[in-house]
Amino acid sequence: MPEISEQEFNQQRLQEVNEALGSGMFVYVRKLLQKLPAYDLALILESSTVKSRPVLWQLIDPDHQGEVLEELNEEVRKGILKSMRPEKVAEVAEGMDVDDLAEVLRTLPDSVYQEVIQSMDTQDRARVETALSFEEDTAGGIMNTDTITIRPDVSVDVVLRYLRLKGELPEATDSFYVVDRHDRFIGAVSLSAIVTSKPETVVSNLIDADIEAVAPDMPENDVAALFERYDWISAPVVDEEGRLLGRITIDDVIDIIREEAEHSMMSMAGLDDEADTFAPVIKSTRQRSVWLGVNLITALLAVAVTSMFEGIFSQLAILAVLNSLVPSMGGVAGNQTLTLVIRGLALGHVGDSNARSLLYKELAVGFLNGLIWAFLIATVVAVWKQDLTLGGIIAFAMLMNLTAAGIAGVMIPLMLKRMNIDPALAGSVILTTITDVVGIFAFLGTATLLLT
Amino acid sequence: MPEISEQEFNQQRLQEVNEALGSGMFVYVRKLLQKLPAYDLALILESSTVKSRPVLWQLIDPDHQGEVLEELNEEVRKGILKSMRPEKVAEVAEGMDVDDLAEVLRTLPDSVYQEVIQSMDTQDRARVETALSFEEDTAGGIMNTDTITIRPDVSVDVVLRYLRLKGELPEATDSFYVVDRHDRFIGAVSLSAIVTSKPETVVSNLIDADIEAVAPDMPENDVAALFERYDWISAPVVDEEGRLLGRITIDDVIDIIREEAEHSMMSMAGLDDEADTFAPVIKSTRQRSVWLGVNLITALLAVAVTSMFEGIFSQLAILAVLNSLVPSMGGVAGNQTLTLVIRGLALGHVGDSNARSLLYKELAVGFLNGLIWAFLIATVVAVWKQDLTLGGIIAFAMLMNLTAAGIAGVMIPLMLKRMNIDPALAGSVILTTITDVVGIFAFLGTATLLLT
Repeated sequence: MPEISEQEFNQQRLQEVNEALGSGMFVYVRKLLQKLPAYDLALILESSTVKSRPVLWQLIDPDHQGEVLEELNEEVRKGILKSMRPEKVAEVAEGMDVDDLAEVLRTLPDSVYQEVIQSMDTQDRARVETALSFEEDTAGGIMNTDTITIRPDVSVDVVLRYLRLKGELPEATDSFYVVDRHDRFIGAVSLSAIVTSKPETVVSNLIDADIEAVAPDMPENDVAALFERYDWISAPVVDEEGRLLGRITIDDVIDIIREEAEHSMMSMAGLDDEADTFAPVIKSTRQRSVWLGVNLITALLAVAVTSMFEGIFSQLAILAVLNSLVPSMGGVAGNQTLTLVIRGLALGHVGDSNARSLLYKELAVGFLNGLIWAFLIATVVAVWKQDLTLGGIIAFAMLMNLTAAGIAGVMIPLMLKRMNIDPALAGSVILTTITDVVGIFAFLGTATLLLT
Repeated sequence: MPEISEQEFNQQRLQEVNEALGSGMFVYVRKLLQKLPAYDLALILESSTVKSRPVLWQLIDPDHQGEVLEELNEEVRKGILKSMRPEKVAEVAEGMDVDDLAEVLRTLPDSVYQEVIQSMDTQDRARVETALSFEEDTAGGIMNTDTITIRPDVSVDVVLRYLRLKGELPEATDSFYVVDRHDRFIGAVSLSAIVTSKPETVVSNLIDADIEAVAPDMPENDVAALFERYDWISAPVVDEEGRLLGRITIDDVIDIIREEAEHSMMSMAGLDDEADTFAPVIKSTRQRSVWLGVNLITALLAVAVTSMFEGIFSQLAILAVLNSLVPSMGGVAGNQTLTLVIRGLALGHVGDSNARSLLYKELAVGFLNGLIWAFLIATVVAVWKQDLTLGGIIAFAMLMNLTAAGIAGVMIPLMLKRMNIDPALAGSVILTTITDVVGIFAFLGTATLLLT
């Protein structure tokens, strides 16, 4: 067991691989990579520059390339697929799980996709085409077809003999699905029930009522919520007619949970959650510039508001100096409320039923924090500039703006959600615009009224 | 299956519960709650106001209260434990898993803790005290002691007979642990190998080399990384002498993964990841005010820098109007880089081995975006104010600041990490300070040189 952390260990290995690659020791690198699981190979590719990825990819054992593709971040995977010939993609595709293969195929350009599909055998093609017929982010899109089915009238002993004949179970098999002769789902029997029951017990008596079937069009986030709620390891996917289509396993659900949680953070900074850390400069610049452009518009709005008070600056330059203070604090306070509400929405804590009490609470928090910082900043300004009125003006503006920030922090994400716009993506821009405009108006407006 | 999303479904149920609670229909609420799994009960408590939580808690079946405590967010759990008498806590504790119980006990005040521990039977107390002897966020702290152990020299048939005698397996049992007579861990045998092997096969031939043991002091984030890497369902915890201590299951790992991913987002807004959405106003105000205070200091720093140029505003009020533009864009651009690097650090993508190439890349992205927006904003200003020099000045400042933002966005989190400070918590404040100061100096400084 390593005495250093996982991250340090990964970094050391990455360094070793990169140095060997740099000195052209390809045989050595190939050897290093051979020993690693797919997850680690994906990590190494994701942590490498765009330039060295194709070289590394060539050095990965072709038998493992399928598994590595499954583990890769979408953007990085696209880059690698682009560099591969279609025959090669088809070859690698052979060993992959249906759900992952479908995900890979979705990202291929149409011509390559056709070529890959044509080169597959009929059975595989049929399975993949079924998987592709479901939306990407639904139960059908993430399910696998490697289910083990048994009949309701057989005994445990027969099941055990059948399993011994099979010789191996698919990964994460914790239950078998009981189906009738038309492949209609009757229920699930846990592996644990099979091994703890008497050999003569009939399977239909062991059906576990806790395992529910999932519809193929259920959104993947809802699937993940069910897994978390019931601590499932796997779950059957059953269509409207009750036919068993496949099963979803916990490893795919973990990916969904991680992506969902990461999504909010990345979106709040205007980044795609599949963003490649080491993407080429031009690509990154293009991706980021959209967000910067949106922010420029809101910044120009603040400038436009400020310019309405341009005349006052030549008389009272101090107002120009202090003008950033109130909008800045409003932005920070509003962002806290916004983040809390966005997490609350994602976890299902916040919705119509408790929006009002949350609004009152955040309004009160904003007002109280407004009082605290209004008093403090008023004291600082009054002492520094020997000007009580100025202190009073900034205190009033601060109180106004932090209260507005509390209200906006609750209302904006709820309204965006209702309009089916991602609050994590659009929330902070709109919030900042409001706290900027309210802050500037409250400060410069009051100052204009009282000081000129 | 509901046609509406999970979140809407939760919200509707929450509304039903709250309305019934509001009209004093306690018997009806008790009935509603009885049907729900612990996960849902925890969700309802977390989504309710602090006032109604104790009432709801009273209406939850005492037999399920232990499970609900396990699922609850830390802050909400503390609040509920505070309202319970020690005997009641001890009673509820009886049915809980050791790892969850240890977590609950850690949050109790010392006197209550003593009372709870005293009221447990000797065996339970010993198990909990072992769990408590490990740090909270390590493998030892999250492990359970419900392992099934077998001897290496028995046959599959004997194992199956033993399991039938047991009658039930602990949750998420996908493997058994082979130990010698001194309880020393030899290896793991998967349940899947047991059911697919011939009855006469000896257990020692079925040991799965892929299942590694985890040390009790391994940090929980590293444990989660191992689970993700190898798609484990459970893993054995073994001490330095090779003795089997317990096992970690996937359900606890999912919680860690979710918390880890949420942590970054919450920290970046200066919030605790265990923050209670519906915490009392005073508590929330206090928690938030620390962060607002820190931000006020950085805002005052920006004010101090601006005040160095106070003299220029009375001559050129337009500079006061435009002064917020460059710092604002720098903050947004820097925050994008920062967020990307913080995620990269968490996923293990970024470290010493590739920090330099990331720095060059982000520097280039910052510079290129700087060029784009410098050109655009220069054009806007030059046309609006009919002033080419002013346009040139703001363009220069924009280019400077976006480049600085790229460098700071990479360097700050790496340096904080090296100093063992959480980059997600401190990163954005430091970054904003830098982009504010650089932005103001570049804009007002150049303006002072060229326009006065």
